[in-house]
Amino acid sequence: MNNITFPLSKRATTATSSAIREILKITERPDIISFAGGLPSPEGFPIAKIREAYETVMTHHPKVALQYGPTEGYRPLREWVVSDFKKRGVEITVDNVLIVSGSQQALDLIGKLFIDEGSKVLLESPSYLGAIQSFNQYGPVYNTIPTDEGGLMPEGLTDEIAKAARFIYALPNYQNPTGRTLSLERRIALVKRCAELNLPLVEDDPYGELRFEGEELPGLFALSQQYGGTVIRMGSFSKVLAPGMRIGFIIAPAAIISKMVQLKQATDLHTASITQMAVYEAIKDGFLDEHLPKVRELYKRQCHYMLEALEEHFAGIDVKWTRPAGGMFIWLTFPKGVNTTELLARAVEEQKVAYVPGQPFYPAATEPVTNTLRLSFVTVPEEKIRQGIAGLAKLFK
Amino acid sequence: MNNITFPLSKRATTATSSAIREILKITERPDIISFAGGLPSPEGFPIAKIREAYETVMTHHPKVALQYGPTEGYRPLREWVVSDFKKRGVEITVDNVLIVSGSQQALDLIGKLFIDEGSKVLLESPSYLGAIQSFNQYGPVYNTIPTDEGGLMPEGLTDEIAKAARFIYALPNYQNPTGRTLSLERRIALVKRCAELNLPLVEDDPYGELRFEGEELPGLFALSQQYGGTVIRMGSFSKVLAPGMRIGFIIAPAAIISKMVQLKQATDLHTASITQMAVYEAIKDGFLDEHLPKVRELYKRQCHYMLEALEEHFAGIDVKWTRPAGGMFIWLTFPKGVNTTELLARAVEEQKVAYVPGQPFYPAATEPVTNTLRLSFVTVPEEKIRQGIAGLAKLFK
Repeated sequence: MNNITFPLSKRATTATSSAIREILKITERPDIISFAGGLPSPEGFPIAKIREAYETVMTHHPKVALQYGPTEGYRPLREWVVSDFKKRGVEITVDNVLIVSGSQQALDLIGKLFIDEGSKVLLESPSYLGAIQSFNQYGPVYNTIPTDEGGLMPEGLTDEIAKAARFIYALPNYQNPTGRTLSLERRIALVKRCAELNLPLVEDDPYGELRFEGEELPGLFALSQQYGGTVIRMGSFSKVLAPGMRIGFIIAPAAIISKMVQLKQATDLHTASITQMAVYEAIKDGFLDEHLPKVRELYKRQCHYMLEALEEHFAGIDVKWTRPAGGMFIWLTFPKGVNTTELLARAVEEQKVAYVPGQPFYPAATEPVTNTLRLSFVTVPEEKIRQGIAGLAKLFK
Repeated sequence: MNNITFPLSKRATTATSSAIREILKITERPDIISFAGGLPSPEGFPIAKIREAYETVMTHHPKVALQYGPTEGYRPLREWVVSDFKKRGVEITVDNVLIVSGSQQALDLIGKLFIDEGSKVLLESPSYLGAIQSFNQYGPVYNTIPTDEGGLMPEGLTDEIAKAARFIYALPNYQNPTGRTLSLERRIALVKRCAELNLPLVEDDPYGELRFEGEELPGLFALSQQYGGTVIRMGSFSKVLAPGMRIGFIIAPAAIISKMVQLKQATDLHTASITQMAVYEAIKDGFLDEHLPKVRELYKRQCHYMLEALEEHFAGIDVKWTRPAGGMFIWLTFPKGVNTTELLARAVEEQKVAYVPGQPFYPAATEPVTNTLRLSFVTVPEEKIRQGIAGLAKLFK
């Protein structure tokens, strides 16, 4: 059977494969220098520690590890999240924590929790493509909050834009795709404004721990404990340990967690017991305190190589780029009229370099924004970064 | 915050916690003999093999195991599924296989694939509660196919009942909750009828490998290769290896798999790489051929204990029960007027025994069916089975 001859749901009919994943397929060719990926560097994976963690779990608690478990998650791992947030002055209990199968599942559950066909959802513009795809499954209508060099502009959250919106989704730290970080002033203004509007604020922070410049700023959930409102905080072990384990978490008021548990139960019963236990085993004795500085140092160095290469090769080209304080991405903005989507094929063919065009990150643009692109600096070796950026410079000259 | 003061989606507002899970919470008390669970016996977990599998994966392929992977699943595991089905005369390729995070995720993806608000879905009555809960998220309307001692009656699939239905969901082997198995004649009739109607047929078979009486019958997917139609086959490693790993699979025509990949991408990106690789490592050299006979033997023995106890203690009580050829469950039917839902509290309090009342398994009953209940025979030791069944007999006398 090659064709589907019976009706599917509207969401299945309109679903399309991620532009990013389609590009990644092309760029798996070894002759291509790919800045397109969103993969963390395997150099940062604590292999020995994780191997040991599985060994310990399977030696001491095999029957719990291999059996069904509670939908809420493995209790010691939830308790670890509580104590980790306590260190940053955030007071929560296990009833505020749900373990999920990676951040992407958190997005799916948030879509399930809030979105009916036609519900209004507020996003930064541009915003994270994976979130847009996840929410799209439930048929939302997007309104966007304008952004500038400093990221999301809280004053853009007008009564009219916010009216009847179900929630706002924001990434305050080194946003994917732009790499921009929200200032403390804007964070406070955003949390206060959402509290005034009784508008749930979804805070996605997969890279929070990967800050390599400047000082850590309080997160939106932390600020909501001071300024009020309802914040749902997503977190992930993908970038601090390893994405292949697919473990993330959601922090939210207990009444929200309780609803999400019901939805997760219908979605996948629970996240794998053995994997949750291995993550807990790996991190319970403070391992991240010694591991994270190494990952930050690695990412800082990689970012530095790419910024240097951009300064060298893009001198004289009319383009601006962001200088991220952490995370994985640099965002380039060319003058209007440059079409990065169309140029991608030439970048790959002529220069053997790949990037992600900015266009799919704009959720509700009335006309396509074609003059931006995203570069990941984390997985490509220094020499190849210089070579790849030089190639891109030739193309955009 | 104890109350939710902003609008949630319709699905979140109407979602309720699984009756079964709520009961399981009560019955975790050590003084209760629980026949309520759907947990496989930990005695059947191949602990040493799985421990070794993780060790091998983390020694030889740690960077693949810890990195993001393709949404379709780990290719060698998909190839294993292909070769396993080939042994049973089913011809498929890797393009027909998607790895999922347990069977419950397969149900969620099937809901996403087919159901819009108000879509008609066909179920056996009674049917698996986890499927009903999963489909409910997408707002279906259920029509039911009548069942008798032999399970689903294919002649019940009339033009009127099938009209505009998106799919039919069926469990041909030792169905959950009834333990009934569909005869070869009914399987063929069902597949042919669905082909005639161009009605997708979802075949759920989590216990297929756990047959301990009679001969293996061809599955609905296998029969569709002979008789036509579209069958979507769900499978799981939960009962043959361990549920705590949360690994299952879907077999379907390539065009369907391709749509499901798009939906899974938006749902959780992919199932954990390391877990898929550990499952593959554990089973690749034919381990299940030596392991499954032991699990079958264990389940057969357990089933026998319970049937013996029922014959002994329920003699003289007006009740019928099923004699499953495999799987985990026995289904009891009392005369109309007996209310197993109401009696559960007394069973737990007076007799210290728990079961699952049949009522929530009926998806679309116009009036509640209250005179059935489900017993799991797999996890309770022999002595406790006799004691528990004696207690239930006292109550129902």
